[in-house]
Amino acid sequence: MRVIGIDPGLRHTGWGVVDSSGSRISHVANGTCNSEGTTLAERLLSLHLQLAEVLRQHAPDAAAVEQTFVNRDGAGTLKLGQARGIAMLVPAQAGLAIGEYAPNAVKKAVVGVGHADKRQVAHMVRLHLPGVELDGADAADALAIAICHVHHLQSSGHLAAALQRAGA
Amino acid sequence: MRVIGIDPGLRHTGWGVVDSSGSRISHVANGTCNSEGTTLAERLLSLHLQLAEVLRQHAPDAAAVEQTFVNRDGAGTLKLGQARGIAMLVPAQAGLAIGEYAPNAVKKAVVGVGHADKRQVAHMVRLHLPGVELDGADAADALAIAICHVHHLQSSGHLAAALQRAGA
Repeated sequence: MRVIGIDPGLRHTGWGVVDSSGSRISHVANGTCNSEGTTLAERLLSLHLQLAEVLRQHAPDAAAVEQTFVNRDGAGTLKLGQARGIAMLVPAQAGLAIGEYAPNAVKKAVVGVGHADKRQVAHMVRLHLPGVELDGADAADALAIAICHVHHLQSSGHLAAALQRAGA
Repeated sequence: MRVIGIDPGLRHTGWGVVDSSGSRISHVANGTCNSEGTTLAERLLSLHLQLAEVLRQHAPDAAAVEQTFVNRDGAGTLKLGQARGIAMLVPAQAGLAIGEYAPNAVKKAVVGVGHADKRQVAHMVRLHLPGVELDGADAADALAIAICHVHHLQSSGHLAAALQRAGA
């Protein structure tokens, strides 16, 4: 089963794809969509095109998107929400079921504690996926989200159902 | 020139289309996209499909989307932002330039004051567009956004440029 994790942002959206076979997880690809354009509409359109191309290339069976908001800043949260809307739409258009995880849940699944910093997350992602070359911090977070989703599907016995839905 | 106004929401997104000819504005259509589905992803996908169909049917030359955020509630702002991302993406995918207006700017343009309530907005929309049947409060707001955008394009001399961009 192939899972894509997405860490959405208006300027930089990280993505990471892993394969899951039994209890083994292996790295497929990771990268960053850098939204181009001067207006919000152009950036959202650019993000949509790039992310749709990533899904076309790697054909995942399931997706997971980080769920976060900027608590102290309405304008920042609105911007992030707009990017997250696109990050949810693209896998939905591809017919994928989408998991959603708060940042702390992702860190707890991958690092073991909910308050890990970005370096710890990248370090644990490298341990989970030996030899992986990370495109950057957003791509590392995205791989962590994908790993978290695989763990969730395995531990909750949802993997068989997810595979069935994916037609695998 | 044909302008669509969009008042985005995760459950109910109002839309309204007007034609502008010289200083005259006339009503074309208005309605509400009611997002279907139990998950966020399903709702966003439903909104995208419905709004894309509205643009296909009415073929506007320009678009305007309300810009708002829920100041006291990060989760609410994130939800709204996700719907707004889709409401921006659809006209961008159709190649339209998109205006953005804060609610107070819309009210000031249509009612004359920035703190008008929904009833006043609907009343003034009816005065601007005699005979219009409003699909609801969200659709009335969307028509107000479209009217606001027409006024802005006319007063700022942007209409000729916008028409040129639209190939009209």
